Amino acid sequence: MRLFDKVAIVGTGLIGGSIALAIKKKQIAKEVIGISRHRYTLALAKKIHAIDKGSLDLEVIKDADLVILATPVNTILNLAPRISKIIKGNCIVIDVGSTKQEIVAKLSKVFTHYLGAHPLAGSEKRGIVNATADLFKDSLCILTPTKNTDKKTLRKITRLWVELGAEVDILSANRHDKILSFTSHLPHIVAFSLIKSIPQRYLKFASGGLKDTTRIAGSESELWSDIFLSNRKNILGSIRILENNLEKIKSAITRKDKRRLNRILKKAKEKRDNLI
Amino acid sequence: MRLFDKVAIVGTGLIGGSIALAIKKKQIAKEVIGISRHRYTLALAKKIHAIDKGSLDLEVIKDADLVILATPVNTILNLAPRISKIIKGNCIVIDVGSTKQEIVAKLSKVFTHYLGAHPLAGSEKRGIVNATADLFKDSLCILTPTKNTDKKTLRKITRLWVELGAEVDILSANRHDKILSFTSHLPHIVAFSLIKSIPQRYLKFASGGLKDTTRIAGSESELWSDIFLSNRKNILGSIRILENNLEKIKSAITRKDKRRLNRILKKAKEKRDNLI
Repeated sequence: MRLFDKVAIVGTGLIGGSIALAIKKKQIAKEVIGISRHRYTLALAKKIHAIDKGSLDLEVIKDADLVILATPVNTILNLAPRISKIIKGNCIVIDVGSTKQEIVAKLSKVFTHYLGAHPLAGSEKRGIVNATADLFKDSLCILTPTKNTDKKTLRKITRLWVELGAEVDILSANRHDKILSFTSHLPHIVAFSLIKSIPQRYLKFASGGLKDTTRIAGSESELWSDIFLSNRKNILGSIRILENNLEKIKSAITRKDKRRLNRILKKAKEKRDNLI
Repeated sequence: MRLFDKVAIVGTGLIGGSIALAIKKKQIAKEVIGISRHRYTLALAKKIHAIDKGSLDLEVIKDADLVILATPVNTILNLAPRISKIIKGNCIVIDVGSTKQEIVAKLSKVFTHYLGAHPLAGSEKRGIVNATADLFKDSLCILTPTKNTDKKTLRKITRLWVELGAEVDILSANRHDKILSFTSHLPHIVAFSLIKSIPQRYLKFASGGLKDTTRIAGSESELWSDIFLSNRKNILGSIRILENNLEKIKSAITRKDKRRLNRILKKAKEKRDNLI
């Protein structure tokens, strides 16, 4: 269903590229333009019909009805002021950054019609080569309006994500960052720490368990440095809780307290069994 | 290829059941008998043609050429003395327990022809229902002979595992337990700690990353309490290293040291990228 005339996607990587593909597939916009720093990314995006036009220059977004910022967190923050000077007055701007407090605080000042979004989709893979029109199917997209977000923008962007296949949930940026510090950022911290802890010469003995547990440590380091620093306080809090739990298990092992150890592991297993 | 007349498998769960299925499929033994505490396990094992005969009573192993102990670590330790009184003099005994030092120390005293084995296969799933003849295909099986292990036993059991589809590696029990404390036990500790750290009400926001990272926390708690306590010293050592690395990442985040943080994550990513 047509919702926009012209959509500009700044950053045509895994997420931006997948949004572009889905918008084209579902005919949500008449025209999709992609902006990237890399010529080959744009060439590939055009080749797979994700975008109608690609540009290295931000100026092309000037007559877009919707601008989607799909770059790493830091780049979203850095580009916002420049973009605000290019777009037309009634243009809606959304970002799909993985943290929201810092971004929403800044972008809601810079743009008139702005809404923060975070589609809980994607993986350790990146780039337009991994983009697919189905990426958001059956996923959850969190929108983070503020008290100043106009109703029309919220309604239209909600419809956009529903059209892309996602279920939409509304949270404050604060709450989003608190929750994600546990459900997404902490697992990444753990995966990076775990693989760092395995001596190189032991890797040939890696079990499926180690591989699963560290899969997301294959994620881009720059991207995640940004995320960790952008959600610093919450993440330090979630790490502290992990350390406490690690300490509890360690203490039961140290004291050879089998009953206590088994009780902890059993409760953990039951919790995991509910996560399908 | 026929290697044994009669094989007895004590514990027909995921591993024992899969060995049974593979032995039957490859016609490695004339007869396979299964011993379990659970009547329904034996009935199911017989139904899927994993075993020719099932018994709740250990006495049936008395004329076996090979006895495979495939119960949890503690049960292996507890059953060994009784089994040694039942088997015939030239019977080979192997166990497939996940830790080796404690088991090898005890079982090599109890049995004349004993060899410790640890097939690095399996998952968080358990039970004969999940058993498959292909479980060991392209997997690694670690054998842990002592200086007293007779060459013939080592040769025959090596051939057994190769027939089952595994590559065989020889390690001392000490070295096995040290390595596995990193490659298998630590990931389990991490997965249990991580899922324990996620507030229940946040689980609906779980990403694919959280699910992967905690998948093995769905493993049986009793089984893993045993393993952790049986490999206590090594595991406490590997946890300490993980804590140090967690601390390094935490400190870079605390100090907002983006360069240092990125350097740590990048090295971790590169290590993970080599783990295929």
